[in-house]
Amino acid sequence: MEKRSIKALVLKAFNTYPAIGELELPALNEGMAEIEVKAVALNRRDFYITQGLYPGVEFPVVLGSDVSGIYNDKEVILNPNINWGANEAVQSDAYHILGMPSWGGMAQYVQVAKDRIYPKPAHLTLEEASALPLAGLTAFRAIKTKGNCKAGEKVLINGIGGGVATFAFQFALAMGAEVYVTSGSDEKLNKALQMGAKGTANYKAENWHKQLAKDSGGFDLIIDSAGGKGFANLAKLCRPAARVVFYGGTRGKIEGLSPQILFWRQVTVMGTTMGSDKDFEDMLAFVNSHKIKPVIDSVLDWKESNQAFEILKASSQMGKVVLRVGE
Amino acid sequence: MEKRSIKALVLKAFNTYPAIGELELPALNEGMAEIEVKAVALNRRDFYITQGLYPGVEFPVVLGSDVSGIYNDKEVILNPNINWGANEAVQSDAYHILGMPSWGGMAQYVQVAKDRIYPKPAHLTLEEASALPLAGLTAFRAIKTKGNCKAGEKVLINGIGGGVATFAFQFALAMGAEVYVTSGSDEKLNKALQMGAKGTANYKAENWHKQLAKDSGGFDLIIDSAGGKGFANLAKLCRPAARVVFYGGTRGKIEGLSPQILFWRQVTVMGTTMGSDKDFEDMLAFVNSHKIKPVIDSVLDWKESNQAFEILKASSQMGKVVLRVGE
Repeated sequence: MEKRSIKALVLKAFNTYPAIGELELPALNEGMAEIEVKAVALNRRDFYITQGLYPGVEFPVVLGSDVSGIYNDKEVILNPNINWGANEAVQSDAYHILGMPSWGGMAQYVQVAKDRIYPKPAHLTLEEASALPLAGLTAFRAIKTKGNCKAGEKVLINGIGGGVATFAFQFALAMGAEVYVTSGSDEKLNKALQMGAKGTANYKAENWHKQLAKDSGGFDLIIDSAGGKGFANLAKLCRPAARVVFYGGTRGKIEGLSPQILFWRQVTVMGTTMGSDKDFEDMLAFVNSHKIKPVIDSVLDWKESNQAFEILKASSQMGKVVLRVGE
Repeated sequence: MEKRSIKALVLKAFNTYPAIGELELPALNEGMAEIEVKAVALNRRDFYITQGLYPGVEFPVVLGSDVSGIYNDKEVILNPNINWGANEAVQSDAYHILGMPSWGGMAQYVQVAKDRIYPKPAHLTLEEASALPLAGLTAFRAIKTKGNCKAGEKVLINGIGGGVATFAFQFALAMGAEVYVTSGSDEKLNKALQMGAKGTANYKAENWHKQLAKDSGGFDLIIDSAGGKGFANLAKLCRPAARVVFYGGTRGKIEGLSPQILFWRQVTVMGTTMGSDKDFEDMLAFVNSHKIKPVIDSVLDWKESNQAFEILKASSQMGKVVLRVGE
């Protein structure tokens, strides 16, 4: 295909949101394919990039790591990994994620390597499917590849609501675990109870972790993305041989963490980010076999993308925020 | 055997050291055996117990977890584990360590379950062999069972000198790793260089970790027992997919630890303490096949036990402090 003009949500400067504009799509390189985008889901990463919190941004840029669309008349989704590399344990130095620096899915068309294209799960709409890739991948590696979640185990998802945490919650339930969740929002906690949570705790309450320890008897597996001072309380909630897996640190540096609790209980703490291509395929197979439906907070037209970014800024969502890409 | 009077180093109160006195050894229960003690090595645990830092002490008590001696005319050493349990991942609630609450090896005789008795490694003297059990077990689980040390990997032993750290150093060398060590003592660093360390750093120097990062290129496996504020620097020394294993926290709570470094590099942090009976047998087999000789800081007569405790108090030792048990 020759280079040609398309419409896209174009980000031109930090501390602005992307706006619909025209961009020239380059000629297609060998091994690459062009997908007609139907829906694109937002990630915290997208908001952070607009705030200048990621290195290496060159304007104009098209964000969007989570894409569903049409390729060769078939409905597809994309693996957002680029150059993970051969080591399952960690991404290579050449690793990056679709949607910065390489242009992503907030556009009518996106160019990706052909091996990034996967059939859309048949039980999902295109909008639901777009919610899956990045958050589903991160959650699956956290809960399964690293966390080794097993049926009957007690699992805590610390901070329900975000895309990864919500998938981790759903995956753990589907694996037969007893899953507890925390949030600062009672509304999110109630939603989680409706979805099958065994118990909840509002971390704005004083001594919430002591009450949760009583209610639950402690946890075999804890998933976190906050870090900060609260992380030390998670250690206190660990049962012997527990695993703590974290994929973020929104509350900053970990403080006041007792080595004694961790070594005496033989706890393992694992950092994780994204996942390998094998993780992606395992996640897709799991989603297909368990008919997991992503929790969608809202679906907006891409002309309303400012509103979508504002939801992420406020962290008010329960599940994913999806944009329909159109004319 | 009927109960009878023996000599032992008896601890009668906190903030004192044990002194030689007479004790009545109870009649031998079924499944138990009586070992004639020849040598007993000290551990930090013994010093901490004298300082009242362990719960559950009942006076009088005989300390000593590391024992070599004679059983049925054969030279033997003892596995210090009591009731580890069936789970390799973590000790049971009934777990304890020989030498408090059950009487240990700082005595002419010690009673243990028969399955705690193992042949002394043939390449070691009784004094050397007594240095092995507790520290060797802890180090082997840290470096191998949990740390999965592999030939060619870069390993950092943070704080060389103590028994566990010194065994971890020797085991990692025998596994073919490139091993670096830190200490606050240049004398200990020089000793480690003579033993085969690839490089060293004195952690009293400013920005020691930056220099060590340059020298080493970072580490695949880090062994620590300090915790505290310095732990955050260890995270900075991690290569992608590194493992950090810690078995102590002498510097207190972990502070200022960056979640971002750990999750982006996919680092795993593992607490560990002691080791399973399988770990003990694997450690013994490794020591026998590699002819590992424990590093002995000093061998003293048990009449000089005060001096031995003072060495532990000052943390001035390089390797183990051993008492010869006699008349």
